[in-house]
This record gives sequence, structure tokens and C-alpha cells, in this order.
Amino acid sequence: MTRRNYIFNVITRQFRLCGYQPIETPAMEQLSTLTGKYGEEGDKLLYRVLNSGDFLSPYRDREQGTSAKPVINMLEEDPSVLARMICERGLRYDLTVPFARYVVQHRNELVFPFKRYQVQPVWRADKPQKGRYREFYQCDADVIGSDSLLNERELIGIALDIFEELGISCNIRLNNRKILAGLAAAMGEPHRIGEITTAVDKLEKIGRQGVLKELHEKGIGAEGIDRLLSLLDLRGDNRDVLEGIRRVFPGSVEASGGAHEMEELLDLCEELGTGRIRFDVSLARGLDYYTGTIIEVSAEDGEVGSICGGGRYDDLTGVFGMPGISGVGISFGADRIYDHMERLNLFPADTGESPALLFVNFGEKREKAILKMLSETRKKGIVCEFYPDAARLKKQLSYANSRQIPYVAIIGEEEEGKGLITLKDMQSGNQQAITFEELIAAISSK
Amino acid sequence: MTRRNYIFNVITRQFRLCGYQPIETPAMEQLSTLTGKYGEEGDKLLYRVLNSGDFLSPYRDREQGTSAKPVINMLEEDPSVLARMICERGLRYDLTVPFARYVVQHRNELVFPFKRYQVQPVWRADKPQKGRYREFYQCDADVIGSDSLLNERELIGIALDIFEELGISCNIRLNNRKILAGLAAAMGEPHRIGEITTAVDKLEKIGRQGVLKELHEKGIGAEGIDRLLSLLDLRGDNRDVLEGIRRVFPGSVEASGGAHEMEELLDLCEELGTGRIRFDVSLARGLDYYTGTIIEVSAEDGEVGSICGGGRYDDLTGVFGMPGISGVGISFGADRIYDHMERLNLFPADTGESPALLFVNFGEKREKAILKMLSETRKKGIVCEFYPDAARLKKQLSYANSRQIPYVAIIGEEEEGKGLITLKDMQSGNQQAITFEELIAAISSK
Repeated sequence: MTRRNYIFNVITRQFRLCGYQPIETPAMEQLSTLTGKYGEEGDKLLYRVLNSGDFLSPYRDREQGTSAKPVINMLEEDPSVLARMICERGLRYDLTVPFARYVVQHRNELVFPFKRYQVQPVWRADKPQKGRYREFYQCDADVIGSDSLLNERELIGIALDIFEELGISCNIRLNNRKILAGLAAAMGEPHRIGEITTAVDKLEKIGRQGVLKELHEKGIGAEGIDRLLSLLDLRGDNRDVLEGIRRVFPGSVEASGGAHEMEELLDLCEELGTGRIRFDVSLARGLDYYTGTIIEVSAEDGEVGSICGGGRYDDLTGVFGMPGISGVGISFGADRIYDHMERLNLFPADTGESPALLFVNFGEKREKAILKMLSETRKKGIVCEFYPDAARLKKQLSYANSRQIPYVAIIGEEEEGKGLITLKDMQSGNQQAITFEELIAAISSK
Repeated sequence: MTRRNYIFNVITRQFRLCGYQPIETPAMEQLSTLTGKYGEEGDKLLYRVLNSGDFLSPYRDREQGTSAKPVINMLEEDPSVLARMICERGLRYDLTVPFARYVVQHRNELVFPFKRYQVQPVWRADKPQKGRYREFYQCDADVIGSDSLLNERELIGIALDIFEELGISCNIRLNNRKILAGLAAAMGEPHRIGEITTAVDKLEKIGRQGVLKELHEKGIGAEGIDRLLSLLDLRGDNRDVLEGIRRVFPGSVEASGGAHEMEELLDLCEELGTGRIRFDVSLARGLDYYTGTIIEVSAEDGEVGSICGGGRYDDLTGVFGMPGISGVGISFGADRIYDHMERLNLFPADTGESPALLFVNFGEKREKAILKMLSETRKKGIVCEFYPDAARLKKQLSYANSRQIPYVAIIGEEEEGKGLITLKDMQSGNQQAITFEELIAAISSK
């Protein structure tokens, strides 16, 4: 926890420094808000919450033998249809969709462009595996109400600053959904951009042959697949690839619009060090709501996949009744960052919130006197404890050792008589009899 | 959020000062972990998460017409039975039960007595109303592995310190579950302590007559109810009531054990100011797992009910296979505390995380120069923004006003020629042309 909080602190400090305001949204959203935003596979990974109380009451046959009948035969129904009938709410799958819902709901109170950050867990009904959790924290920053590429540039700069502070060497890949849309159109399948990008997105995971096979199975023609190949084959630096796109899709307004945006963004990012920022036409990210820039950050020595990603969405608030508002956001996967830092030993030495002092407990007799000292010590901001039971001294000292408490205060009969405290240094084993004031001074000076 | 974080910070600082360590647990727990711990009414308020994928597959009739049949007729089944069949997991209802599960799971790595704190949301499928939310934050501190009353005393002290720092006048009521168990036994219904305490717990809400009616309806005899009345009638200061209890239950080992613990605890709390700490025999708290001390804190001008509560549980880890470990904890209801502070205007003036400076955007030409200044300014720790669009100046100034940004930096053609920046004070309207270094100095000195 202490280490994860360290990551959260680095991330949120950068967000605040750039003017993003904190919000939180509820864990549960209406399923109607969540479904259809994360691609077909995302929908399957939504956790659904059973309606409370008698969740079947809407389907009960009040007067025997009427229209409720078909529902009775639940086992013959498609489970996803049944799930919709008995679950209205689901757990949030990311922070972007709930944020768009929030923006539409509070549209009259918010000042646009609205910059917010949000650090909360999300849930996905996935098979748990390395770098993939059922519950994990996302740390998001979004700007909504501005279509300027300066926002993308700011978010990319934030990512670089955060990873630099965390000591993580990273690479940033960029793409633009419009280029992918141009590709889908050029493949003769403009409406199947979702399926095509989902397949392309798996390029790293299942390889080139895997992607082609998947598209072939989906009935995409050979000519279309050739187009895709010529795109994926584009090589060279960022400018070369941009040139290539204009060559591959000579007539596509969409693709060349995307290429133009990418060119502008790369130009804005120049100062950030383009060596680490690469335009990658195969980058897709399987989220249906992206419409422009797509961003993905991976750690250089990366076993955990993407540690940060985001993109621009033009229609997300439109789904909730507020069209024409463009947004762009970035999301940090705190748990993967944690795993990566743990593996490479990147965490700083513990900032140490463990207690500085333990008062030994010898029983009721001196309890009240120690309670008073305990309270005085804490008032000085010193983290300290009073062992709650009059256990054997050996046990109490062993507790201090296990908790890495450096000092122990012993007040036996003898000490009490003299008005002194024996302060034991747990590392050196040294003991000295001192007054309470001297004890406070000794601990404070460490 | 900023205000809620203020409450979290006050609470967790006290927890840390007393040596409690932070942990978090997952939002979802096995329902078998959660059910039966919160009383009958609590079980009904659990949110259940539908099993993923084909949640009906265990009940499908693989070879037509065999034993799966009865399940098909779902509409005739009890919904709570059905819920158990299709939901294995639920959302956590409090932090104590997941904590007990955690302790048992990690028993071999933990040092006992184990002091932990936890700040996370919990979920209850309740009707939302004033002071009652479906999702709300609890801030818990627990000590497990020690049955010393010093732990209770520490938690009560923490509560008093926290509410003092937050500026909330509060009263603390204490009781002991053993006294309530003695009462149930004296009423001739030792095994119905759960029902009896649930009814007594409603005393404030439904009044004395309501409680008696409820118990009568549950079939509790008149003699038993008379016993209860003689207990609830006990009046006077803490010592008087303790005396009374020994009179009312002369033969009950349990009740007198509880009374003895209460006496000791009140003695330990003397130094904390007993005026605010009252022994209340009608305090029950409807949680099945309490076995000893019960603690409840309410705000003096309290419209919101209890703002903090807790108690001792001797058998909670036993349910999970680790018997004989006593624990005690306290839980702060951050959302109710928030409502109370908001109503009484107790929050300090905002610590102000809103930006100190906005750079006006006049278009691409000076974009890169401003990006550089923006980055320099942020490196000084100054929260600042660059308006992302080249909108009309009026719109950009109005944005600064709405966000309460005190300074605006204007770099037009004229300023650029001279290498200066016009710094506008949004409150006074004053403007001055200064260098970037002077701007940094001016903002930093505020």
C-alpha cells in the first residue's frame, strides 16, 4: 500500500500541476451506460450486479398461465439475454465512459474545457494472469470540450514526466483512428472498423499470421487484406510512414486527415524528445470510442504490456445526449506500473511510516501513567504504540523487532521509583535511563 | 473531493500516528464470506455479482430430460435461493468482515497484535436517503490478536482526537454485547439475541412502543419484555447504571462480566473526559459479530445519525478457520461526516488547488514558446494551464474567472516583439508588462 500510494502521489501531483481537478464516480453504472463502448469482447468482461430483492418479479406470472410463460424457460435462453433481464447495473470497466456520463449529467455546472483526473479501481471479468487483474486501479486525466492537439501534447508530456520521476524508461506509440478508419474503407469494409482494429490490435500478441487468419475467418476479402499488409509494411521514421500512408490511401480524406493530425502532433511533441515517441500504424487499442489520436506507453524492459494508454473520443458524450463535444484522455495502469517497478527494484527505500517507539506493558499498575506519555508523544507527531497486553518482555521486544520499531521504552518498578524511563535502542541493544523530556528529544532528533 | 480528502487526511493521520498500517481488500468477496455476518436485514442488503459467462451452465440439462429439470422452473423458486445459484460473489458490505478474511488468509505473514487501517467504499442495496447511501466510504482501524481493553480505549481516544480536529462536537455511547446476551438469557431467549438486539437497536428510530410491539410479534413473552423494560429504565450516571445491571441480572455471569468490562473501560477513559462518554444499555448495533464492547459516536447537532461506530468481535476469524483471536475496531462514516460538516459549515477555507496562472492562446505562432514557459513554470511547482484553443480573449478570460485562476499571462504580437509578457491580475484588473523571470517571481511570492 505504501508503495502503491507512492505511485499515486507521483501521478496525481503531475495531474494537479497541470490544472486537472479530482472527481470520483460510483462503482456501479447502469449497464446501458457501459455496454457497446468497449467492443464486443469488452462487453463480455463486464461484471453485472443482480437486481436487488425479488429480481424476477417483473417476469412473474401474476395471473396463472399468461404472457410471462416464455421467460420461465430460462435454461433455453441465451445467458446474455437473461443477464440483461435480471441485472440493470454493472461495475465500471474503465474511468472514461463513467466520466463522459458524468460530464453530460453535470453539463450545466461544469466549466469547459473541463480537465479532470480520477484515481479509482475498475473491474473486468477476465482470467487473472500476469499483468491482468480482475480489479485494478486506473489513474486517468481527461480534457473534454476542446479538440486542440495541445491537449494530446500535454497528456504525452505528463506521461513522460511521470515515468521519468518513477525511474521507468518508456516508449510511446501513437496512431490515429482516422487512419484505421481509412484503412477499413480501403479494405471495402468501412463499417467493420471495430472488428478490423480489434484484430490489428492483437498483432503483437498473435503475430501477423494470426491477424490475417482472424480477418480471413471474419470473411474479409484477400484484396482488403493485401491493403492492410501494405500498411503494416510501412517502414522508416515517423515522416516516412506518414508519406507512405498518403501513398497507400491516395483518395482517402479520412486517412489523410488522420495523417495530418499525426504530423501536427509529432511536431508539437518534438521538444519532448521524439526518439521515444513513435508513430505506429498497427497500434489500435480495442476500444470502440476512440475517433482520433491513440496513445500507448510501454515500459522499455516490459513484461507487462501497456502501462499507460489513451486517445481522443469525439462521440462519447453524444451517446449520452450531448453531441459535438470532443475529449481526450490518458490512463495509467497503477498495478502494472507497480509490478514493473517491483521487478526492476525501482522503488525508493521505504519512507518509513512504521512506529518510532514502543512502550512496554507491565500491567495495570503503570497503565495510566504510560497512557499519558503515549498521548504526549503522539502530540509531538511521533508515531508510537503501547503494547496492549502485559505479555512477557521477550514477546514485546520481539513484536518491536518484527515491526521494525527502533526504540522501546521500558518503565519497570525501579524506573518508576526514580521517575525515569529506560530507552532501549533495538539495533545496538544499548540502554539508557532518561527522563520523559529527554526521551522525546532523543527520538525527535533521529 | 478536495473536502472529502481533507476528512480522509485527518482520519488517516491519527491512525498512522497510533501505529496502524494501511491495507486494502478487493471490492468483491465470496458471498459465503459475507452472508450471516450482518444480521438477517444485512444479508438482504448485499449486492450480488452475477457469475461471468454462461451463469446457468451448471444447471443445464445436458442429456435431455434428466435431473436438471427442477431448476428450470425459476419463477417458482425463492429469489434468494436462485441468487445463490447464479451469484458466487458480492460487493463488500463493510470493511471488518473482509479484514477478518484477510487476517486468516495472511496469518503466517502478519505480526500480532496486528493494527491496520483501511479506507475504501462499501456497498449496501438500501433505499438512498439522507445520510444513507448505496456506496459510501468507511475509514476503519482495527486491532486483532489482543483482548486488552487498552485497544478499546485507544480507539475511543482516536475518535475524540479526530472529531476535535474536524471541529465536530460529539457524544460517545458505549455498551457491551455480553450485557445484551445476559438480557436475552434473562428473557428466556438466549438464542434469540440477534433478533432481540436488532429490535432494541431500533429504539431511537421506532420508539419504545415500537420495540415492544416488534418483540411481541416475534413471540417474546410478557415476562421477558418486562425484564427488558427494567433494563431500559435504568437511569443515572454510568456507575448507577452498572449497579443497576448487577441488580437486574443477579445471577448472570455473562451480564456481570460485561458490566465489569464496561467499568474497567470507563475507568481507562476517565482521562479522556467522561462527560462525553456515556454507557447506554439500549445501544445494540445490528451486527451479528460483536461479542464485547460496542461503541457508537454521534454528532451533537446530529441529523445524520451515527458518524462512527465499532466494537469487539471474538469469533469473526473463527468463522474463517482461525478461532480464539479477538479483535476490536472502529469505523468512521466519511460521507456522513462530510454532510454534517457541510451543513454546519465546518470545513476550513479551501486550501486551493486551483491553478495560479493561465497562459492565453493566440494560435499556433507562439505555441511552442508558450509550451516552453508552461513547462518551466510547472517545474517551479506552480499549477498553471495553457488554454488549449485559440478562442476569443474574452472567452479565455471568462474561463480563468470561472476556474478562479488569479493571474493570466498574455503574449500578443507586441509583447513577443519586446520579449515581455503582460500579466493580468484577474481580481484588480491591473496589468503589467514583465519578463518571464519577473512573472515567476511575482506568482511565487503570492
